[in-house]
Amino acid sequence: MIRAVVFDAYNTLYNVNSVIPKCEEFYPGWGTQISLIWRTQQLQYSWQRSLMGNYRNFWVLTVDGLRYALEELRLPYNREIVKEISNQYYFLRPYPDVTEALNIFFPRQLAILSNGTADMLHQVVKNNDQDKYFQNIISADAVKIFKPAPEVYGLAAKELKLNKKEILFVSSNGWDIAGAKWYGYITGWINRTNSPIEKLGVKPDYIVSSLLELALKTKNI
Amino acid sequence: MIRAVVFDAYNTLYNVNSVIPKCEEFYPGWGTQISLIWRTQQLQYSWQRSLMGNYRNFWVLTVDGLRYALEELRLPYNREIVKEISNQYYFLRPYPDVTEALNIFFPRQLAILSNGTADMLHQVVKNNDQDKYFQNIISADAVKIFKPAPEVYGLAAKELKLNKKEILFVSSNGWDIAGAKWYGYITGWINRTNSPIEKLGVKPDYIVSSLLELALKTKNI
Repeated sequence: MIRAVVFDAYNTLYNVNSVIPKCEEFYPGWGTQISLIWRTQQLQYSWQRSLMGNYRNFWVLTVDGLRYALEELRLPYNREIVKEISNQYYFLRPYPDVTEALNIFFPRQLAILSNGTADMLHQVVKNNDQDKYFQNIISADAVKIFKPAPEVYGLAAKELKLNKKEILFVSSNGWDIAGAKWYGYITGWINRTNSPIEKLGVKPDYIVSSLLELALKTKNI
Repeated sequence: MIRAVVFDAYNTLYNVNSVIPKCEEFYPGWGTQISLIWRTQQLQYSWQRSLMGNYRNFWVLTVDGLRYALEELRLPYNREIVKEISNQYYFLRPYPDVTEALNIFFPRQLAILSNGTADMLHQVVKNNDQDKYFQNIISADAVKIFKPAPEVYGLAAKELKLNKKEILFVSSNGWDIAGAKWYGYITGWINRTNSPIEKLGVKPDYIVSSLLELALKTKNI
């Protein structure tokens, strides 16, 4: 029985491509490419720094990922531009079906478990007026390592005081789902882009194309 | 003083894009895209599985990366096709300047330190007739975790019985150089594509555009 639902934040609830308009303001025509390289680097830094044992928090990695993206595209920048674009992470927009889905999930205990810092997560939730939905907002920063390390997933079961098998973990990132499943959660993969299953040795329990579909599918479980 | 030179294998000595012609045989017009997604997935799996604590050796990850790439591109495959394309990893071709560079490096002790399995590494070295250059061929498989984990870099100092500061570690992968530098080696980054430095908190000791340039630059050090 599912007693709580724990959501990943970036690209699951909030679309990281919401940064594109601000990128376009400074670099017309480059927004989509900046966003793509930025996200890739941000994630790779999270895995590489975790493995190196050279942790910096996700805000630092977000800024570093943007700087790398701009340098790779040979786009000149300064501290103010980087700050203004990075700050968009506080204002990422939810996917269109998120509010409707959260209202269906709501009778259960809902939480966020993300690589983002507590500050990044609280701000994006607040700026989208979604404080009422989440009883717990949990950051990987507490264990100084990033997903898919089991220490990160362990934070949610511990904080919610529930058994792993009572928690539905929801993410659109296939590797995040693999990490959560490997740890022991029930997993729901939001596969919006019809991507292949990541070949990481485990399979998601639910595969759906939207958050709303998952909310409806798991309503009576 | 540099007493030994330790080389990364894939994309440093051997060009992973050597797989493209075989990909083109089976999937005309798709070779470059397959190779790009394949390599990305192979590396991401190495980081993700290391962090999850769900290790499989690099041959498995290489096959899995190829399967993912073919699925993402909606290209049908079977076991025989995957085997024949993956086997190209035993026949990757060195970059054009590798032989000349190795001849200059050769008076020192030379070694390979790679994510690849011992079998993958010995075969690619042998198939390129380069056995004579390398006194040690060292695989991350010995510690069941991948670069940039410090355990992997530690294998080389241990096996060569040298101090970290007597070893020049050479890679074209910026994150690999960051891991080696963080561990304590002298590092030479072969930046063939004029990429930005990875923002991982450390800087390479040497930045060059070819292996030959590094060989000449470090000849008397």
